[in-house]
Parts: sequence; C-alpha cells; structure tokens
Amino acid sequence: MTEQRTKAGLECRPDAFNAPPHHLLSIRDLAAEQIQTVLSLSAQFKVTLEGGGRTNLIEEFQQRLKGQSVVLLFFEPSTRTRTSFEMAARKLGMGVTSLSIAVTSVAKGESLKDTVLTLMALGFNAFIIRHPHSGAPHFVARVLEEEARKRQTTLPKVLNAGDGMHEHPTQALLDLLTLQEVFGRIQGLKVAFVGDILHSRVARSGMWALSKLGAQVRLCGPPTMVPRLFERVGVSVFERMEEAVRGADVVYLLRLQLERQQVGLFPSIAEYHRLYGLSLNRLKDLCPDALVMHPGPMNRGVEISGDLADSDKARILDQVTNGVAVRMAVLSLLLTDSVEWWEG
Amino acid sequence: MTEQRTKAGLECRPDAFNAPPHHLLSIRDLAAEQIQTVLSLSAQFKVTLEGGGRTNLIEEFQQRLKGQSVVLLFFEPSTRTRTSFEMAARKLGMGVTSLSIAVTSVAKGESLKDTVLTLMALGFNAFIIRHPHSGAPHFVARVLEEEARKRQTTLPKVLNAGDGMHEHPTQALLDLLTLQEVFGRIQGLKVAFVGDILHSRVARSGMWALSKLGAQVRLCGPPTMVPRLFERVGVSVFERMEEAVRGADVVYLLRLQLERQQVGLFPSIAEYHRLYGLSLNRLKDLCPDALVMHPGPMNRGVEISGDLADSDKARILDQVTNGVAVRMAVLSLLLTDSVEWWEG
Amino acid sequence: MTEQRTKAGLECRPDAFNAPPHHLLSIRDLAAEQIQTVLSLSAQFKVTLEGGGRTNLIEEFQQRLKGQSVVLLFFEPSTRTRTSFEMAARKLGMGVTSLSIAVTSVAKGESLKDTVLTLMALGFNAFIIRHPHSGAPHFVARVLEEEARKRQTTLPKVLNAGDGMHEHPTQALLDLLTLQEVFGRIQGLKVAFVGDILHSRVARSGMWALSKLGAQVRLCGPPTMVPRLFERVGVSVFERMEEAVRGADVVYLLRLQLERQQVGLFPSIAEYHRLYGLSLNRLKDLCPDALVMHPGPMNRGVEISGDLADSDKARILDQVTNGVAVRMAVLSLLLTDSVEWWEG
Repeated sequence: MTEQRTKAGLECRPDAFNAPPHHLLSIRDLAAEQIQTVLSLSAQFKVTLEGGGRTNLIEEFQQRLKGQSVVLLFFEPSTRTRTSFEMAARKLGMGVTSLSIAVTSVAKGESLKDTVLTLMALGFNAFIIRHPHSGAPHFVARVLEEEARKRQTTLPKVLNAGDGMHEHPTQALLDLLTLQEVFGRIQGLKVAFVGDILHSRVARSGMWALSKLGAQVRLCGPPTMVPRLFERVGVSVFERMEEAVRGADVVYLLRLQLERQQVGLFPSIAEYHRLYGLSLNRLKDLCPDALVMHPGPMNRGVEISGDLADSDKARILDQVTNGVAVRMAVLSLLLTDSVEWWEG
Repeated sequence: MTEQRTKAGLECRPDAFNAPPHHLLSIRDLAAEQIQTVLSLSAQFKVTLEGGGRTNLIEEFQQRLKGQSVVLLFFEPSTRTRTSFEMAARKLGMGVTSLSIAVTSVAKGESLKDTVLTLMALGFNAFIIRHPHSGAPHFVARVLEEEARKRQTTLPKVLNAGDGMHEHPTQALLDLLTLQEVFGRIQGLKVAFVGDILHSRVARSGMWALSKLGAQVRLCGPPTMVPRLFERVGVSVFERMEEAVRGADVVYLLRLQLERQQVGLFPSIAEYHRLYGLSLNRLKDLCPDALVMHPGPMNRGVEISGDLADSDKARILDQVTNGVAVRMAVLSLLLTDSVEWWEG
Repeated sequence: MTEQRTKAGLECRPDAFNAPPHHLLSIRDLAAEQIQTVLSLSAQFKVTLEGGGRTNLIEEFQQRLKGQSVVLLFFEPSTRTRTSFEMAARKLGMGVTSLSIAVTSVAKGESLKDTVLTLMALGFNAFIIRHPHSGAPHFVARVLEEEARKRQTTLPKVLNAGDGMHEHPTQALLDLLTLQEVFGRIQGLKVAFVGDILHSRVARSGMWALSKLGAQVRLCGPPTMVPRLFERVGVSVFERMEEAVRGADVVYLLRLQLERQQVGLFPSIAEYHRLYGLSLNRLKDLCPDALVMHPGPMNRGVEISGDLADSDKARILDQVTNGVAVRMAVLSLLLTDSVEWWEG
C-alpha cells in the first residue's frame, strides 16, 4: 500500500517541510520520480482528450471516481485556473461546486476553519483552494486531517491552486509537461524566469520543479523584484535580460502586476517594457532558439509584445491545454487509492 | 394514489394553513407520520452515502428522476443551504441551476411572478427558494399552480429554503434526523432554543417539528427577542438561561444577528455572551448531559465558545451532514410519484 | 459532405455577409430552407421533452455530443437567455461553464482575443456569446478560425446570444417556432413589431427571419425609435399603432428600455403606454384576432398590461419554452457533423 502510494508519486517525502501527506500543497514536497509519475499520466490523458491513446482511460477513472465531488474555494478572482480545474474535474465525471469568497466577507462571516469543516461535512472529497495568504492550503489540510482523525472518516484531499506569494504547484506541473513535450526532457534545460520573481508563486513553484528535474534555472528582473538571496537555493540571478536569456532554451515571462508601480518597484511601464519586455525581434536578437512561456493572463505590450505572443515561439496556449490534463492527473492520483492499472 | 401520496408523507393535511399540496412550504403543513417518512428515507440515504445499506438506492432514484432539473432561486445570500441543496440534487442526478438575485434588482426588473413563470416555461421541475419576505414560497407555489391548471401541465414543486422570519422546514427536518440518530427518539426530549427566537425561522420550524413529534420545547433569550406570546402555542418561555437549560437534552443555540444590536435588541455582545452564550465550562455547570446544536454559521465567542464548538458535545457538523440526506429525501419524495419501492 | 451540411441548414450561403461558416452569428446568414431545418429539429426536440415522439432522440444526440463542453461568455447580464442555453446544453449532456464578465473589467484585464484563445485551449467546443458591441461574436469566430487553421485543430463553434443592436438569432428562431406552432405556417403572416425598433436586436433578427420565410413585417414606434430607412429593406413603417396592427396576426411588443427616456427618445412612460402600450381591451378594439408576443423581461404596465400578459392572447411563455428546444437544435446541428440520422 505504501509502495503503491509511493508509485503514485504524491506521497510526501518523510522530510517534506510542514506538509501533510495525501495533498498537493507544494512542489517542494514532491520527489523527482513523483513529479515524473504525474507527467506520465498527464501525457496519457492529453492523448486521450485529443482522441487517441487508450480510449477507455478516462472512463476507467470516471468509474473509480464515481460519486465524488470537488469544491473550488477561491478567495482570489481567477477565471483561467478555476475553469481549468472545473473542466478537469468534470471530464472525470466528478461533481463540481465553485465558491468565490471575498476575503473581506470572510472577516465578517465565519472563520476559514468553520467554512472548511462545513464543506467537509457536506461530503466534498477534494478542496481546491486559492487564497491570498501563503500557507492557507496547509492550514486547510491540517483542519481536515484533525477532523478526519477525530471522526475516523475519509480524509478529503487539498490541492493548492495558488497561495499568496508561496506556490502554485499545478502551474509548475503543466509547465513541465509543456517542456517535456517540446524538448523530450527537462534535464539540462536552461530556463530564464523574467519579471517580478519576488511576488511570483509561479516562479517559485517552477523554480523548485525545474531544479528537482535537473534543469538550470535563471532569474531576472529589477533588483527590487529579484533579491540576490535566491542564489542561495542554487539558481542564478541576473539584473540584465541580455545576460539572463543568453543560450536559454526557454524564456518564461511573468505577468507584471501593474499596481506594483505605485509602490515604486519599477519606474514606468515603458521603462519596464524596454528593459524586461520581449518582442519577437528582441527575442531573435538575444536568443533566437529560445521558446517563450507565460502563465497568463498576458499584458500585451508590457512584458510581452503582441507579435511574440501570437508567434510560434510562444507556447502559452499549449500551457493552457496541458493544464487540463495535468489537473486531471493530479485529481485522479490523489482521489483513487490504487494506481497499478494505469501504469505500463 | 391518494393513499400512496399520504404514505409519501408530503401530502398536506386538509386543514393545513394556507399551503398548497405537493410542496414543502412549512413544517406546520406536515403531519407527524409524514415527518417520520422523510426521516426514514433520509436515514437510508445517509447510510448509502457512507457506503453501506442498499447500494442501489440512489441509482434507483436517479433513474426515476432522470432528466429532471431544479432551480435554486436565492434572494438572500447563502453558502451552506444552497450548497447542501445543490449537492443533494446532484447526487440524485438532477440538473441544477443556481440563481442569486438581489431583491433590489428584482424591484427594478421583472416581477417575482414573471421570473417564476419564465423558469417554469424553461422546464424546471422544482423551485428551491430563499427569500427575505415571509410567505414568498407560498406565493411562488400559487403562481405555479394557477399556471399548471391553466395549461394543464405538470406542477413544479416548491421547496422553502428559508422565508423571512417564517420557516426553514428542511433545517427542522435535518435537526430531527440528528436528534433521532443520537437519542433514538424525539418523543419526550427536552430541547431549549436560546437566542433571538423572534427573528428566527430556524427556531420557528424547529418548534413546530419538535412539538409534533412529542418533544418538549423551551425558548430562551432576552425579552426583546422572546415574546411571552409564544407560550400560547404550548412551549415554555424563559428569560434566564440557567432555568431554560436545566435538565435539557439539547441546547439549540441560535446565531446572533450582530446588526440587531444597533436597533437596541441587546445591549452589547459581551453582555449577550455572558447571559446567553455557552462555553464548555458553562454547559458542564448548567446541564452536563446536554448536547449542543447550532444552525450555522457560528459566531465563535458570541453565542458559542470555540472550545464548545470543537468539543464532542456539539453536533453541529452532524447537522450539516444530515442536511444533504434530508434534502435528497425531500426532493425524491416530492419529485417521484410512487413511493412503494423504497418502503420496507 | 457539403450536401449534408447544406441539409443541416447551418452552412452559410456563399454570399453571406461577412460571416464565417459553421457558426450561428446572424439570421441574415441563413437561407430559408436552413431555417426550416432548424425549426423541424426543434419541433422534434420539443415533443420529446414533453414525453412524446421518438423517445431516444435526445439520447442519440447525447451519445454524439459526449465529452463536448460549451462555455457561455456573457458580457451583459442575462438570466433568461443564459439559463435557456444552459438548460439546452445540459439536456444534451454537454458540460457547461458560465462566465459573466463585466466589459469594464475586460478593459483592465486581458483582451477578448486572449480570453477566447485561452478558452479554446482549455478545450471548449462551443462559445455562446452575448456582448454589448455589435459584431463581437463575428470577431470571436474569426479569432477561433485563425487559430484552428494555425494549429490544424477542430474549430469551436460560435453562437451569438445577442450582440449590441445587431442580432439575436436564437430569439428569432424561437419566435418562428412559436408562430409555426400556432398558425401552421409563417408564409403570409402579418407581424407588427412595436416599440424601440432602432435599438432592438430582437426586432432586427426577427425582421430578417420573417421576411425570409415570406411573412409581412410591419414596424411601429415613435419616429425617434423607428427610422423611415427601414422601409428600404422591404418592411412597412408606421407611426400610429392603430394602423400598424390593423389586420395583424401577431403584435410583437418590445421591451422598453426605461433609461432611454433620459436621452429624450420618448416623453414619458405614461405617454408611451398610451400610444404604444397594449392592454387586453385595446387589443380587442384594434385587432381582436391577433396574438401577442414579447421577448421578455416584460415591463408590466408599460409596453404591455398585466391583463394582456396573463391572457391566452399572449404566447410569451410558449416563446420561453420553445427557446430551449430551438437552442438544443442549434447546438446539435452545429456540433455534430452528420445529420442524416435525424432526418425523416
């Protein structure tokens, strides 16, 4: 059973920082082989969604997940990630409830703890949570675990759909799937993240995931947004884009939170675009062989020009498509207890 | 047919006050044996949801309800009740549409009558309605009945999910199921409702339901919130909590609407908590054998302390769980016309 | 294949104005026989929904549409049209995602183009779009076509659910179905639209549809709302209601946008009601044999009196019911590629 779970790739390592088992809270909790397991199932789902492969793969999971329900608990607005998770859960035949809650109204209303306990009592099997506070999904997982222990009932699973400036693990997984498809490997790839690294959970999860699988990670942005201390975890930090993207296989542009300008993190949008934005021409100058990725939604004309976004250098829509397959894989692995039947 | 319907337990008594048949508008409309029928099917659903019992019970109802759709028409915000009804309807395989409408926008837009007729013409089979005005579900039922008669079409069913200060019948039914589970009976139980009885549809529906099944109901709260005239309907009224809960089997704490303070119904939250709030220690002092219930959402630290809410004295999450089973039972009974196959 | 598609009735005519094939963007794109094909399948669906006809018709389409998903992209508020499309898609067993987006937030966020490309990458098979700007669905269709060509993937379909003052094609189709049911034909019917023709996409789509099928269209309203230039497209224009409705088979009352008064399009609501509103008595005076239609939501007491709305002269709720069948037919025809099996 433990062995099966380890194969399933979502068991936490014994030394995992602060993370309860059985959930997907953070990429840091996963071992490299566990990530590979997710990618492998994701790739199979993608083929099936496109009409090929084992045509009964999805039906088999639907059968195993029959009667299960997920709740999306979004304390931050999101269309892309929410719709992607909804699509993934529905393709697997699960019931989906989507709750959008303003953090302000939570302050007035019941506590996060009581909301979570209520949803568990209603019978939800998985909690997909996005929250502006780092660590909120870990808190939810602890609440559920304590309650499941107390009542001796099945533990619902928690999936982190983005928490504060901490992690966004399914984004990292879909990014990996996209790289795997294009390059046939992750090992040895040079990936440069450009933008506001400091506030980016996308960069943080991506950085851990890529490092685990042997890619070389570079970070680049204005010094206010890319503290040097990131070097301590084994990645390179650059201030000038020219240097960061030289010889890179992938330039990963981050969305600029335009409201950051007011607090002085960068002087102006025009200045930002000149220094850290990328157009098709500039890409050809700096690293003609590199592909471009972006987590969306894009600010066209700020971090990425329209011509680059629409070119075949950009893999941004592949990322979106892969997100559905990755989320199907993660839900399937977390919510079924045996895995041998989809292996091999 | 009439006999079957009577067995189904949701036919109105001939003398039912102002209530059209076939709907669930108010607990007052139901006879004791009808309530027992709902509780019995609810208990069967609960066992099945937990993986036991007749495993095909739900499938059989899904088959009978195939193609049916419910609309939730919520004119007041609600997460708990709405999600519970959605979960119940989806478990039964029904299509669910959820409309949240601000009463203010209704004033500008079309009338409630036209909204209801439109939804009926769209083909919905059940209307689950929450409205700030007492009697709104009765009005909706009358509109639907008149139209069904005029067009000679099937009458959609109306379920009251809370109307003003009037009733919240499925809450009372899930409370009964919770009591039945714990005590094995309702007859003879002593239940003390504490709080703002005057404005509480939960207390009102609960009071009728408990009285019908032979429980002894006590009401307790500040005199501004618990008028003496309730004594006329055969329940006891207390101002002091000590007296109200003495020897009680259950203390049912009501949510304090904090905005009531502004209109002077109670002096301060601290004062309210001291007089009518309950902690684990105070419970042990006053009625050590009593269990505690609450309709949610709780104000921790106001009507209930955190330690009591989290203790095994509290049956609050059981109430939530039972709500799904009860709503499945009510939807099943109202929307299928024969009942013999689930009996016995 | 081309022949089949032509039979399916939704192939654009070669000379169709500005419209990409495969979508339902505008009634003007459809030939008369194509409209008849939609009406014929709609009528079959309606019989089946009411429990008669070929009972497996819906199951057959469900089988063919298995795994397909639609997204409703509503940039204007709507309950009626949105719920009707949702109901239609769910009856066909399709996954439904409903996004309500304020145009203002789009301005701040990503472009309509990027939103559409993202939803396409997520795997949606049909886009049902309502937008305050005329032509937005055509723009969406072009974005999707370009991307499908670039990636050589299946083209998602676009259904216009109302764009600015341009068209609302499914409304026109459901209106035709209603007329067909009542009169057994469209050819030769005299239909008078009354109200704010200038701003009405309902009147515009209806006018084209009726003219194509050989009905006689009359337009009536204050001169500020019914420009004489409509006469150039072969319909009659009247200022006085008495003249417009004389001998009419149908009076089609349009919803008065009450906010138009502020910009001086009509002097007062009372004045409007007196000149262009209809009561049961006035109908009996002016055209006792005529039926009344309205797209909803009604302003009772403004363009239509309550007694007329509730009388059997009004076919307004039939319109609503027919909307579900018509939207099922349109989705079925657009999203399945062969049609021979439902013919005959």
